[in-house]
Amino acid sequence: MNGAESLTRSLLASGVDLCFANPGTSEMHFVAALDRVPGMRCVLGLFEGVVTGAADGYWRMTGRPAATLLHLGPGLANGLANLHNAKKAGSGIVNVVGDHATAHLALDAPLTSDIHTLAAPMSHWVQAADKANDVARLGREAVRQARGRPGQISTLILRADAAWSEVSSEVSSAVSSAVSSAVSSPVTSTVNSELAAPAALNMAAVDQAAQLLRTDGAGTLLLLGDRALREGASTWAGRIAAATGCGLMSAFYGARIERGAGRVALPRVPYAVDAALAVLARYRQVVLVGASAPVGFFAYPGKPGVLTAPGTQLLTLASTAHCPEQALEALCDALGARRSAPALVPSSVIATPLNDGGLDAASIGVVLARHIPVNAIVIDEAISTGRSLDSATRQAAPHDWLCGMGGAIGFGLPLAIGAAIGAAITTPGRKVIALEGDGSAMYTPQALWTLAREQLDVTVVVFANRAYRILLGEFAGVGAGAPGQRAMDMLSIDRPTIDWVALA
Amino acid sequence: MNGAESLTRSLLASGVDLCFANPGTSEMHFVAALDRVPGMRCVLGLFEGVVTGAADGYWRMTGRPAATLLHLGPGLANGLANLHNAKKAGSGIVNVVGDHATAHLALDAPLTSDIHTLAAPMSHWVQAADKANDVARLGREAVRQARGRPGQISTLILRADAAWSEVSSEVSSAVSSAVSSAVSSPVTSTVNSELAAPAALNMAAVDQAAQLLRTDGAGTLLLLGDRALREGASTWAGRIAAATGCGLMSAFYGARIERGAGRVALPRVPYAVDAALAVLARYRQVVLVGASAPVGFFAYPGKPGVLTAPGTQLLTLASTAHCPEQALEALCDALGARRSAPALVPSSVIATPLNDGGLDAASIGVVLARHIPVNAIVIDEAISTGRSLDSATRQAAPHDWLCGMGGAIGFGLPLAIGAAIGAAITTPGRKVIALEGDGSAMYTPQALWTLAREQLDVTVVVFANRAYRILLGEFAGVGAGAPGQRAMDMLSIDRPTIDWVALA
Repeated sequence: MNGAESLTRSLLASGVDLCFANPGTSEMHFVAALDRVPGMRCVLGLFEGVVTGAADGYWRMTGRPAATLLHLGPGLANGLANLHNAKKAGSGIVNVVGDHATAHLALDAPLTSDIHTLAAPMSHWVQAADKANDVARLGREAVRQARGRPGQISTLILRADAAWSEVSSEVSSAVSSAVSSAVSSPVTSTVNSELAAPAALNMAAVDQAAQLLRTDGAGTLLLLGDRALREGASTWAGRIAAATGCGLMSAFYGARIERGAGRVALPRVPYAVDAALAVLARYRQVVLVGASAPVGFFAYPGKPGVLTAPGTQLLTLASTAHCPEQALEALCDALGARRSAPALVPSSVIATPLNDGGLDAASIGVVLARHIPVNAIVIDEAISTGRSLDSATRQAAPHDWLCGMGGAIGFGLPLAIGAAIGAAITTPGRKVIALEGDGSAMYTPQALWTLAREQLDVTVVVFANRAYRILLGEFAGVGAGAPGQRAMDMLSIDRPTIDWVALA
Repeated sequence: MNGAESLTRSLLASGVDLCFANPGTSEMHFVAALDRVPGMRCVLGLFEGVVTGAADGYWRMTGRPAATLLHLGPGLANGLANLHNAKKAGSGIVNVVGDHATAHLALDAPLTSDIHTLAAPMSHWVQAADKANDVARLGREAVRQARGRPGQISTLILRADAAWSEVSSEVSSAVSSAVSSAVSSPVTSTVNSELAAPAALNMAAVDQAAQLLRTDGAGTLLLLGDRALREGASTWAGRIAAATGCGLMSAFYGARIERGAGRVALPRVPYAVDAALAVLARYRQVVLVGASAPVGFFAYPGKPGVLTAPGTQLLTLASTAHCPEQALEALCDALGARRSAPALVPSSVIATPLNDGGLDAASIGVVLARHIPVNAIVIDEAISTGRSLDSATRQAAPHDWLCGMGGAIGFGLPLAIGAAIGAAITTPGRKVIALEGDGSAMYTPQALWTLAREQLDVTVVVFANRAYRILLGEFAGVGAGAPGQRAMDMLSIDRPTIDWVALA
């Protein structure tokens, strides 16, 4: 057994059985091991941003890390933007990045680069395996780290000689017995559990939040983020709001928001700074449940970055390390609100008529609201056009809404791959709908190829306004007046027109 | 004048008048300044790898750095693979990477990342401008660094508040007067010179090389790289070879090889380790002129990484910091070989008949050899199919041959943009031919859009073998036998078939 095979077996024994891959020569021993050892599903991406974005989508729908396979420093670099997004989404991923053999590094061959430094800004954990005997252990540790709460980005640098060298017989038998025990008890085995155990409930915070809500319900906002945006948690939050009259909102972005008819309505903190300031100004206290303190996406001259009014008291009921459902249930009990009926979004048929102005954001919103199937997964990278789709679809059939969490463009199509594969494993039959701006979709169009190869049930809607429309708004926002020719050339993508049908 | 405008003016005054851009919100003040201040040509890329690869191509044809405009950490990350290639090619580039306003960084907004750490592995120089008054000075320094010999990658992180804040009147007038002096003396001004002055000729190395060539000409190899692959330098090398009987080769890759009929033949060190070992084994001495000591592209179990035979003496006549033409001329004089006639590639009409087996690498090579126009620029990212095109085209009309220098895939189409723009400035009428593997072209297909928008005279040839063919060879090379289904799925890209005509 060589190091590459020990890694494959170690990943499988740790419950990682899906690998999004874009390999190169230095990873060929790992490819051969993936080929030889049964059990790993390998999904090819033709660009590394597809690979890492898919792993993000898979985690969001399953709570399980996938592995990625990337080709040295430049391959990792191509995957970093979507690793940034995944890190901000709290998604766990195990990156396996190939590297030259240790002795070859000193020769400064063309593909030599400082992979460790490159990986660090977008990883929580980075280690290089330069000895075959260490590979299985580091693989296990990478998975353990990735299963953190929130999920972590683990990056294991696999030197070619560590991959191709034989492991000792001790390591070989340890790896083999780990595999057979994982196979014999796939459900009860702790290595196959979804996530690390949550941090202990903070009862002091529960009492403090209850106190705030009892004395000034209307002046208090429950701000939900992360796993508090799932139905179980938001239902408890709805009961609290019904009992205390507090405000209830979601952070502007959510990794996976369970919403739609029959669920608790969670209006989002507006993206635009002025609008957000106006909405948040009415609250003297904000209780954070899996959400961070609300800040502007970007800074603007003369505008504050912190969106809550000066003097607003912030209280963290649950961080992303906690179980928000547990925290909200405890708060509900502290308030005696267990039997309060949360206000739910009506499940009536949507009767909004289509306007007769043809295809625009409003009419698209109506069509979407009517036709999003029950349990669909909607991925929102529609940027400027998409800004209104969120409110337009709030009465649609129950569905999940997945946002970009790190602001790096080009996550939507890759995310659709992983979300579709993940959903098919956990709850077969869920349809994925990817809403894409044309500017955004052009960052990772290669994802369309993997969608086709894997025959995934994904509907892609490209909003082709032929411009970086959001930037036209931002240009006006900096007070530069009407853009001239040079600026327009950098903000419009209409010359030439992209034929999305032909491209797809 | 705000910081963004001072940067624009400072770049122009330093002779940088081309900016490959993919901007975002945090760069909007810089976009507005580029719009307002006349003189900067801005070329939009729809993906950052296009932007950085284009800047590499521009340097190779002009010896002048272009600016790039990238959107925070993830935008930089998307450009890193081609910055890696550019760094290994010795191309100078000035990256301007936007960042949040300084106060906003502490708020950990979604797009916050450690840009400095990300930039470091692929940059020679990284600085952050967090005060408006520093921006122009740092911009000048970034250009000065980029103009090193070899060219350097400069990365200037432009914080949003440094861009939008007003500069002092002292800075404002200094910037303005620098601009007018540069405009009034564009040719004589040192800031507009192509490159930093070369390091002083190493006469001791010249004498040593002459001694080796006199005593053991046949056992000595002159190995050319970097600027020694240009016609002036290689002609001197040809005279030396004619006079001494020494070997004459080019490194496997060259950033810009001037070759074809009427020029000195420079066979390349083979890519395959065994073939390279065999070729280099006949030399007891290798004189390096702009080339590094030959090493394997990748490491393989049981094969050496150093390609010269053990005990081979290596002598650096000129590094990439020197002027290779000057060093070779001096060596020629030391040998009294100034009047020796170099062996030139015959300029006869190529009469090799086409085989009747249809379209394959051999027949494509013949067609290319016949039809490459005089002074064409050929970009070689054809990988497995392209391996034979180099020798097939050596008798073609004189042309430049540009290789990937860092091994990161996806450089070819972006490079074509910058090479075409650069060539049009220095020598109008040169045709660019990009030879692309289908696997390679899929990393940066967005470049096709910029080629169309800028109406550049570029012919793209995609060799669609529907596979990562080179990796199929490497898989066999690791001794894993015939690939099984999982491996084939990661090494073939034929399901679905990519319709390149529709995509383009």
